[in-house]
Amino acid sequence: MENTQTIDRNETRETISSEKVDGTAVYGRDGEQIGSVHHLMIGKRDGKVRHAVVSYGGFLGMGEDYFPLPWNELTYDESRGGYVVNRDVAQLKEGPRYRRDEEPSWDRAYESQLTGYYGAI
Amino acid sequence: MENTQTIDRNETRETISSEKVDGTAVYGRDGEQIGSVHHLMIGKRDGKVRHAVVSYGGFLGMGEDYFPLPWNELTYDESRGGYVVNRDVAQLKEGPRYRRDEEPSWDRAYESQLTGYYGAI
Repeated sequence: MENTQTIDRNETRETISSEKVDGTAVYGRDGEQIGSVHHLMIGKRDGKVRHAVVSYGGFLGMGEDYFPLPWNELTYDESRGGYVVNRDVAQLKEGPRYRRDEEPSWDRAYESQLTGYYGAI
Repeated sequence: MENTQTIDRNETRETISSEKVDGTAVYGRDGEQIGSVHHLMIGKRDGKVRHAVVSYGGFLGMGEDYFPLPWNELTYDESRGGYVVNRDVAQLKEGPRYRRDEEPSWDRAYESQLTGYYGAI
């Protein structure tokens, strides 16, 4: 019976609204919160999230910049209700970023740059 | 050369922000706008959009209710910058809905109900 309830609870939380994903916590490999999801970049046709745009401001002292992470860098942690990124903070700080008042082109060249950085570290 | 430019333009628009997807137009099979995307329901773990929650208010005279459509009911139309739903309006009007001041459980039973309705029509 207890097992059934656990399964039900997990199923209920399987999805999140695009309206509510902003602000979801992002944790580092040591379990400390390092930032939060600002928004997701979603494929218009296939409906697959490509990147989570993360803000480290207030946690890593990285100001207000946005850091786009390839989706496969994030692992959902049900118990904490947030995402874990299994990278060294120093590597994340050096990753591609953009200012809040700018917007990348999000074309294939830009996405390759993001994938290239995280694929190489 | 013209071909190359077309490809570049499409690539630039391949993704949309979770912040900006709300309000994207939804067209019926006859090409008329029938509603707009209110928000998306996204799998927290796999990052795949499961449902688009659509409002027909003002178009089909369906008031303020929300109608969750399985993602595979929507086909992105690049030229119009919106989604086409290849269903009869009468079928959409009879689909599962909920009031704005309510929120479904979004558990597996509810998702099966949605899939069942659109799989059967």
